[in-house]
Amino acid sequence: MTRIRVGLDVGGTKIDAVAVSPEGEIAGRLRRPTGWGEAAVVSSIVDAVSALAEETGFDLSDVASAGVGIPGLVDADSGRVLHAVNLGVESLDLAARAGERLGVPFRVENDVKAAALGAAALSGAEGAMAYLNLGTGVAAGIVVDGRIWRGSRGIAGEVGHLSVDPNGRLCGCGQRGCIETFCGGGALARAWGRPGDLPVRDLLVAADAGDPDALLLEAGLYQGAAAGVRVLVLSADVERVIIGGGLTALGARLEDGIRAALLAGAEASPFMRSLHLDERIELLPAGSPAAAFGAAMVGASIPSKEIVSHG
Amino acid sequence: MTRIRVGLDVGGTKIDAVAVSPEGEIAGRLRRPTGWGEAAVVSSIVDAVSALAEETGFDLSDVASAGVGIPGLVDADSGRVLHAVNLGVESLDLAARAGERLGVPFRVENDVKAAALGAAALSGAEGAMAYLNLGTGVAAGIVVDGRIWRGSRGIAGEVGHLSVDPNGRLCGCGQRGCIETFCGGGALARAWGRPGDLPVRDLLVAADAGDPDALLLEAGLYQGAAAGVRVLVLSADVERVIIGGGLTALGARLEDGIRAALLAGAEASPFMRSLHLDERIELLPAGSPAAAFGAAMVGASIPSKEIVSHG
Repeated sequence: MTRIRVGLDVGGTKIDAVAVSPEGEIAGRLRRPTGWGEAAVVSSIVDAVSALAEETGFDLSDVASAGVGIPGLVDADSGRVLHAVNLGVESLDLAARAGERLGVPFRVENDVKAAALGAAALSGAEGAMAYLNLGTGVAAGIVVDGRIWRGSRGIAGEVGHLSVDPNGRLCGCGQRGCIETFCGGGALARAWGRPGDLPVRDLLVAADAGDPDALLLEAGLYQGAAAGVRVLVLSADVERVIIGGGLTALGARLEDGIRAALLAGAEASPFMRSLHLDERIELLPAGSPAAAFGAAMVGASIPSKEIVSHG
Repeated sequence: MTRIRVGLDVGGTKIDAVAVSPEGEIAGRLRRPTGWGEAAVVSSIVDAVSALAEETGFDLSDVASAGVGIPGLVDADSGRVLHAVNLGVESLDLAARAGERLGVPFRVENDVKAAALGAAALSGAEGAMAYLNLGTGVAAGIVVDGRIWRGSRGIAGEVGHLSVDPNGRLCGCGQRGCIETFCGGGALARAWGRPGDLPVRDLLVAADAGDPDALLLEAGLYQGAAAGVRVLVLSADVERVIIGGGLTALGARLEDGIRAALLAGAEASPFMRSLHLDERIELLPAGSPAAAFGAAMVGASIPSKEIVSHG
């Protein structure tokens, strides 16, 4: 019997699921739509694992563990998810309910923290690294020697809600000028304020056409992400910052923009130049399985005594 | 033979030296002026240890280790100090030179990091804590489970040079609106710009008299320190932030001011309110031996194989 580790990155619209072999290779992968509401979220996770097993050619009894990365407030010990508003989840005992349905031990982790773990593992980063997620919101996960750095109350890496401009735009959190107001997809869409399915793309197209509002927002996007990188290095001194999240669909333009903002910010400062921040960032490649892979690592961190017999 | 651990906090004007008993109690303490220049710094450290031994009643052969906390760039492994400009030190092989003079194994650490270690130990803080030093400059030390968190390149905790206002005053580091421009004693003195030996005290007296420049600087002092606290909690999620450094001579006014700034900043933000930052800060008491005690802990961290026979 092989010992497959399953990892699921549960997003607002889709689940990315991977099967990881005992050698740490990705043996199978699929994407499925995410259900809305507590029961549907559980069912779509269960269906994704079943479909992954069938497509990859393993049995559920081969599954040693399953891990889920999911937005919202997660109690990693109990596997409970709170306030995952984009999924219609108020309070969900996810590990217990999914585990019961499949006879597989589940662990649950905040999606950014799980993705950080996966990004660290797939990039081979050693020591301290951070994963900066530019999605609808902005948050980071810090990984030290291959383990998620939680801090004292589980909010380590919440750099999106640090203000870097007292006169900046109002943030959803109630403060002004938060990093998230500059480089969060939700905040950018609100600030742009024009109709369209892909507001950040629209904004960049308008910037290319010389629209002054768009130019300002685009510059702010790079400066906000650069501020996030600076915070992570000047507080925790992470060696690398890997940037992920929905906004990485912008590709090289985003990476070049952030790098240019870091260089411009360091231009007048020998101290900042000495940190070589522009050399310490990288973008997660499009379609990277890092988030799901990290979720599989979360699942695999189940202490052996908790692994129940199943099948 | 008792095993005394000596710790020295070397500041720009004075050395604070403590003798720590094997039980971890402070058995003796004295203050001596700091010499200027490399040879004089070594001599004043050597003199301080000798005087401490004489006053406390132990022999140099009773000293198991000595630790020094000193400003500037410190290579903790080699015990070398670079660019301690306030001490007239460009490059000093401090551990070797002081150790040779006294026949005692020395370790050297950056003063803020050593103070962080001491503050964590004396406060009994567990898990992750930060020490935010408001002195001429502003920097923090992060301590996790009783050990200094260095990060990847030794710059963890350099939060003084994070910009929180793109239109803020120019910082000595070349950036604008750094946290240090708001709450560093040097930057405040420059911004105040009037003659006087105690510019920050003068500024507070002027604020009490209604001087608008002084009122603005005072409010900025508290807001800058509050920003430092927010950075430390939202990045590393430290449970407590202990505030030390020269500006703590301002006492309760400083502590109340920072607390009020934290509360005001959280007023419109349920998320920030949920962090209870105002309850997570404390001021190091005036005259606290934390920095010298932390230096003694640094000295005591010498691996036993490096402890040479002496006497």
